[in-house]
Amino acid sequence: MTKEIRVQDIGEQGLLQRLQSFCPPDLIGDDAALLSIAAGHSLVVTTDTLVDGVHFSDRTTSPADVGWRAVAANLSDLAAMGAEPIALTVGLSLPGSVTVNWVEQLYQGMIDGLQPFQTPIVGGDICRSSVISLAITALGQVRPAEAIRRSIAQPGDAILITGYHGASRAGLELLLNSELGNALEKTAFDRLVQAHQRPIPRLDVVTLLTDLRTQYPDLRVAGMDSSDGLADAIVQICRASRVGATVKRDQIPVPPEFTPWVSNAQAIEWMLYGGEDFELVLCLPIEIAEKLLVQLGDGAAIVGKITAEQTVSLQNKDAIVELSLNRGFQHFSVR
Amino acid sequence: MTKEIRVQDIGEQGLLQRLQSFCPPDLIGDDAALLSIAAGHSLVVTTDTLVDGVHFSDRTTSPADVGWRAVAANLSDLAAMGAEPIALTVGLSLPGSVTVNWVEQLYQGMIDGLQPFQTPIVGGDICRSSVISLAITALGQVRPAEAIRRSIAQPGDAILITGYHGASRAGLELLLNSELGNALEKTAFDRLVQAHQRPIPRLDVVTLLTDLRTQYPDLRVAGMDSSDGLADAIVQICRASRVGATVKRDQIPVPPEFTPWVSNAQAIEWMLYGGEDFELVLCLPIEIAEKLLVQLGDGAAIVGKITAEQTVSLQNKDAIVELSLNRGFQHFSVR
Repeated sequence: MTKEIRVQDIGEQGLLQRLQSFCPPDLIGDDAALLSIAAGHSLVVTTDTLVDGVHFSDRTTSPADVGWRAVAANLSDLAAMGAEPIALTVGLSLPGSVTVNWVEQLYQGMIDGLQPFQTPIVGGDICRSSVISLAITALGQVRPAEAIRRSIAQPGDAILITGYHGASRAGLELLLNSELGNALEKTAFDRLVQAHQRPIPRLDVVTLLTDLRTQYPDLRVAGMDSSDGLADAIVQICRASRVGATVKRDQIPVPPEFTPWVSNAQAIEWMLYGGEDFELVLCLPIEIAEKLLVQLGDGAAIVGKITAEQTVSLQNKDAIVELSLNRGFQHFSVR
Repeated sequence: MTKEIRVQDIGEQGLLQRLQSFCPPDLIGDDAALLSIAAGHSLVVTTDTLVDGVHFSDRTTSPADVGWRAVAANLSDLAAMGAEPIALTVGLSLPGSVTVNWVEQLYQGMIDGLQPFQTPIVGGDICRSSVISLAITALGQVRPAEAIRRSIAQPGDAILITGYHGASRAGLELLLNSELGNALEKTAFDRLVQAHQRPIPRLDVVTLLTDLRTQYPDLRVAGMDSSDGLADAIVQICRASRVGATVKRDQIPVPPEFTPWVSNAQAIEWMLYGGEDFELVLCLPIEIAEKLLVQLGDGAAIVGKITAEQTVSLQNKDAIVELSLNRGFQHFSVR
């Protein structure tokens, strides 16, 4: 019965009061939140908007998963800058007919996604709209000299990926057509679905890089996250740094869950263009990349290197193809 | 002809490229923006969401005005914390059928509203939705001891308002029924419409308070902005500070443009409950309030004082009524 209470039944203030239990009490109650930044650190800020029917749908995503994924995407942008998280704000628009239970599950998903990183939600805004949308701004901090930038890759750098690619796209496929996974063990099936529904931002890599800096104080790391796909990330870094890259196809680890059901061609398609794996793609001197690599889990690999020549090529056993962005995800695109 | 290009014709990347001309080039191009905070300052962060048909409509608001008002509301939240602005992020969702010209006018309105405060837009997100919505996060900085808080008002404090109230509500009425303003001079008519369409956040008051602090280094200022109405602001401050207030009706300045067309009863209604004037309501020791007052323009006034007794009363010549929040604006409210 209580599950059926709708937002319009309790009003904006009623909903805000319920949601305040998800926020630290000392950080709310004023027109804005007040936060500390560590000395010598710059502020890092990133915003993402998710819209019902575009970025999520009831078919593949529970409200808790929507919350988790929204938080993961934003924390991943902070990790992509080499930053540690400080806080999040949430702007939520929704029809009054949405149940309060749906909203509370959304918030619970966000809290669960934030919990390992001890990052609070410090406020936000709720308003009426004909469509549910969620605008999240994540705030982090980094010493400016230690920021990971897209534009600072140099010829000779190793290209390191922090984990498997394509798993999120495969998980989505299984959610849409679960019979495709008939040949899969349940644990493998679940791992792929989890990769899609509950991606984990690689803030642990930021900590590892901080540790490496005690040995290499001048360490320069270029990079970004692979939220729009591995191919997109490599091409974006090369463009911003005015360099090129050679990537070796057989050095990109194939998720082991692919074996019984995904063709080779499909696998490479998902690994390069699937997107939403939220791994990091880093460019750094080879000897340091190798030290970092041994501390990362399965799926991490050095997949190629940065070149002075400004083309991005993918080398197969028997062919070299130029990587392009044409298949990257774009909203509003005319097909 | 070019005015008819729609977002769906140029895609997300095409639109982002056009909008980048509104952002400082050194602050975009990575997964997140990198910003400096002054030493000894805390970060202040606030988020607002505006939805087409709820917070604005083509009837009363051009896209440039939507942009201006969105920015003004967010900068006002920073002013309400005693903070100076650092930067804004913008999350925009919209149908592909919206014209590029509409979006560019929206951004131009934001840039115009930010210009006096030299505050950049440092990034954001664009995505497809069935309804236009705009989520803005404003970032500012303040020395923590100098933050204006709702919860620190003390009995005996003067209640100072920084300008006229009710003008924005009156301007909206004139936009909806322009014949109501037949008795008004054009300049007066325009001032009221301007108060609604182009409110000015009171960041100048933050500067004045900073100057006052050279004389009064321990100055404590409680307060908030009056975006939800003057009555709402006073009641919210009293609740947060566990105090009460007596407000004198005849000390609240009536906008001079009201004289020929607004009844007394209507005037007090709009002044107390109209909202969106984006003035500040400050509680501070009387002698300092008086020093601040002489530096503020017409419409600023000391309208009452904070009391230990926890009721908020409005004193008329002949009656005392208790101020309530019942008429404050709430989304989703059941009428």
